[in-house]
Formats: sequence, C-alpha cells, structure tokens
Amino acid sequence: MSSTFCITLKDVQETQKSIQDLIHATPIMTCSSLDALAAHKLFFKCELLQKTGSFKLHGALNAVQSLPVKTCKAVVTHSNHGQALALAAKMMGIPVHVVVPHTAASCKKAAISGYGAVIVECDPTDESRAVVAAKIVEKTGGILVHSHQDPAVITGQGTIGLEVLQQVPAVEALVVPFGGGGMLAGIAVAVKTIKSDVWIFAAEPLNADDCYRSKVNGVLTPNLQPPTTIADGVKTSIDPNTWPVIRDLVVDVFVVTEEEIKHVMQLVWERMKLLIEPTAGLGLAAVLSRHFFKRQHKIYKTFV
Amino acid sequence: MSSTFCITLKDVQETQKSIQDLIHATPIMTCSSLDALAAHKLFFKCELLQKTGSFKLHGALNAVQSLPVKTCKAVVTHSNHGQALALAAKMMGIPVHVVVPHTAASCKKAAISGYGAVIVECDPTDESRAVVAAKIVEKTGGILVHSHQDPAVITGQGTIGLEVLQQVPAVEALVVPFGGGGMLAGIAVAVKTIKSDVWIFAAEPLNADDCYRSKVNGVLTPNLQPPTTIADGVKTSIDPNTWPVIRDLVVDVFVVTEEEIKHVMQLVWERMKLLIEPTAGLGLAAVLSRHFFKRQHKIYKTFV
Repeated sequence: MSSTFCITLKDVQETQKSIQDLIHATPIMTCSSLDALAAHKLFFKCELLQKTGSFKLHGALNAVQSLPVKTCKAVVTHSNHGQALALAAKMMGIPVHVVVPHTAASCKKAAISGYGAVIVECDPTDESRAVVAAKIVEKTGGILVHSHQDPAVITGQGTIGLEVLQQVPAVEALVVPFGGGGMLAGIAVAVKTIKSDVWIFAAEPLNADDCYRSKVNGVLTPNLQPPTTIADGVKTSIDPNTWPVIRDLVVDVFVVTEEEIKHVMQLVWERMKLLIEPTAGLGLAAVLSRHFFKRQHKIYKTFV
Repeated sequence: MSSTFCITLKDVQETQKSIQDLIHATPIMTCSSLDALAAHKLFFKCELLQKTGSFKLHGALNAVQSLPVKTCKAVVTHSNHGQALALAAKMMGIPVHVVVPHTAASCKKAAISGYGAVIVECDPTDESRAVVAAKIVEKTGGILVHSHQDPAVITGQGTIGLEVLQQVPAVEALVVPFGGGGMLAGIAVAVKTIKSDVWIFAAEPLNADDCYRSKVNGVLTPNLQPPTTIADGVKTSIDPNTWPVIRDLVVDVFVVTEEEIKHVMQLVWERMKLLIEPTAGLGLAAVLSRHFFKRQHKIYKTFV
C-alpha cells in the first residue's frame, strides 16, 4: 500500500481492538425488493443504529483515545462531529466544547448538550467557526479535533470497513458516501489492503461534486462555494489527508441529484422502515442511478 | 392451561417449525436512552422488519398452510390482513383475492397487488366488506381467512412469543398491542405455558378500549362504534376466540391517548431510527405512561 497515505491497515486493526467494546457492531440489513430494483445483492451497513445515530463515533473515539488523556484539559470540535465527539470525550472523562452555528437545529444542540458538552455558538460560516474554535482552544488549553482531516479520525472510520469484511466476507464492492472523505479513505485503506479485488466507489451529491471533479482533474479540487444540498452531512470538501487515498484506491465516483436522494430516502423508509437522513441515501442513490449501470458495464468490460 | 382456549402451545411449536424457513427471525433492538426514560430495560421485537412490514405474516402463513392446499381454489381475505395473506398464498401457489375499501390508500393497494393478489373494492363499512367477501368466496370456490379470529392465525402469531423467549430468555414482562387480540392471545398462550411467571400486558388506544372494558366488566365488550384512532391497525374488536385467553392470561390493560401515541412515534423515529407506524408505538406508550408506573407498583405490592 502506498506510503503516501496518512494511515495504515495496522493502525485500523489496532483501533478496532481499542474501541470495539465502546461501540455497537451495527447490523447489516438486506431488502429483497431493493435488490430487485438494483439488480444486485445489496448489503446495508446500518450505522444509523450506532450510538449517537452516526458512524462518526468510530473516528471520534479513536481521536479522543489518541490524545494525551492524562494531560488533555479539554477537547474542542465543530458541530458536524459534535455529538460523536461529545460522547467519546464523556466516555474518556474529558470536558468537551462544541462550536455550533447559531442557526443549527435546536434538536442537534439538545443532543450535543445531552452528552455533556459545552455549546459555543458561532456565525454560520467556515471563518467564524474556525475563529471561535481557536479562541476556545486558547481559553481552555484544549485540543482541536477536526471532523475528518485528523488521521486518528480517518483510522477510526476505517474500522467500519473491517466490520463489513467480517460480516460479509464475499463482498465485491463498497459504495461509500463522500463528504470530506474521512470514512471513505479509512475504509478504502483497510479493505483494499486486506482484499485488493474489492471495488471502492464514492457517492456524492451532484451539488457537492468535489470528489468527482478531483478524480477527473487528477488533482485535489475542493468545492468552490459552500454547496447547496439536502445531504447536509457531506457539504465539506476533500482535503490533503484523504485525497491521496481517493486518488489511488477509489475506482469511480457517482454523483446523484437531489431528486435521486429524496427518492431513495422514501424507498428506504417504506421498504426497510429505517429512518435514514439524506446523506445515508447517497450509496443507494448511486447504485440505482443510470450512471452506475453504464459504468458498471464499462468496468466489467475493462476488468474481466 | 385452560381447555377453553382455541389454541395450545403444541400448536404454536409445530407452527414455528413449519413457517420458520419462510419468515425473517426479526431482531430484538435496545435503546439506552429509552431505557432511561422508562426506568426499565426494554427489548423491542422489530416485526416492522418482517416481510410485508408486519408481524401478520406469521399468522397468514399458518392459515394458508392449514388449508387443504391441494383442493383450495383460492383464498379470500380483508384488507387489514391483505399484504401478509397475499404473500403467504403466493408462497404456497394459491390465488388470493383481497377485499379493500375503495377509500384505502393507494400505496396499500399497490403493495397488495405487488404480491400478486386480485383486489376487489368494497364500501368502507364492515357490512359491505362482509357482503363482498362472501360473494367472492361463492364465485371463486375459495376459503375466507379472517384476520384475527381464525385459530390458525392466532397460532401463527404465537410463534412471535416463542421467538422472544428464545432471544431474551430472562424476559419478565411482555407488553403487546391489542386490536382483535390475535397476536396477544397467541403470544400469551405460548409464553405463559412455557414460563408462567412472565407478565402479559395489553396496550390499546383510549379511543378503542374494548380490551380494557372487557377486563373491567369481566365479559366480552366490543367497541360500540368504529373507533377513531391514529393507530389504525387496532380498530378491530375483541372476539369470542381471543377473549378467554385475554380474560385468563392478561394481567392488565394499559390505554394510551392519541397524544401519547404520537409522542412515542417521534421518540422511536429519533432515538431508534425505526420508522414505526402508530400501532407499533402502543407498547412503548403504555410503558412510558403514568398508569404503567402506578399499576406496576400495585402489581409489585400484590405479587411480591
């Protein structure tokens, strides 16, 4: 595996041992009517059933465990990682401060507070978020944990890939939602190192297609403006830590429209009874898209 | 166990063997935040993840398997059992006709048709439903399977009780939604015969409290008028086949308001990410109600 990657399989395997007693091993679910629609056998890794309702706890736990716990006075993070980091820090007994735009939904704030975090409000811009976070770091003597750029977070998300290989050893392809790329990069390194013939695909909104454009251009190409998409979990951009993995290990990127995302949300609600958020629908939206069918065909012709 | 019951544990055990390869053994889920709210350790039997999205397939499969399959020309049923019976009959290769009020939601009709059933529309009254069903029986030479009064259906639902004992051997109490009582009666006979110290509770809407009133009066007391409740799966009334079981094996009945039902639906959506329908919230609504706390206290005083 390339030495240009910021994490290794060994990191991910060691992390799995250190966090597995603190997280749920979420189930893999199947749905025959969605298999029929997709013309593929699909396995849904149900991280919405993870503690805090998101896969992010994997990375957050590893990030907090990687800190100098004895001397660390506080942990500071941004809201899109807030619930997971708040719970992880609570488990480790470290105070946590979460910077949240004042426009954030009150239920999200309540959930973050519910895990014992101190909420610090900022304006709803990247700049304000960074400035406020820096102030809190200075004031508390704490450490900033980024939502997806931190290698410890990427390593933690990679444990999801190990779980999938353990739960579905015959898996042939993984379709992973892409925002900043932390989950995708972690899973790609873990899975491709163990089983190099598994195809790793990314799925992202057409309205936030930085991963697609980066692959087409062959260079890191962030979103130029804050994207407008219903999939609010993937508005962040590709970054220098995740890009080399995406570049080398991801075979293709599928972009999906807002309509496709809404359509699969309803499908999953009705057929699987799982209350997914828009971002969690990206993978299925990709698999059901015409592009997937066309490109799969191309890939089969190329690889076989 | 009383000889006045229309089914026995042995019936349920044999049924479990005959249907288990055709149904999902649905998972039991837990949720620590709901445990904290309820001050009890709760186990949720996720029959919403069953094929057709409902527990009803257990009873429908046993009902169809109990028919003289070689000579049976068709199966006829009403809409509230329609999807489950349609799939069960399809599995057994028997044509099925489902009588549906013309006011029924189009998605329900589509689901029934999707399983290969012939839909026959009627007016939205019990009388019209019965008249139309009788005509179809006559015309097709088929057999009418009732949604909850048929002992084969009650026996099939009882297999859910066996599953719960197998999945959570230490279970102390079951809280079961009550409509016509098929699921409750089946589960009660199976569970109480194996483990007599398990408490069986019923949960029903205040607006459809025929079970509660029957227990208070000591005699079968159906709903006088068609009930108005958001929990549309339990608008049917207690009947002569299920009443003796309810009378003898159910320790208490909890009635919940429409507001309580709506509240727990949102709780389960948010905390468990499971898209339950109102009827599936009855059990949790009962457990979270003041009445449950009060009566539990009384029961502890009485029993211990």
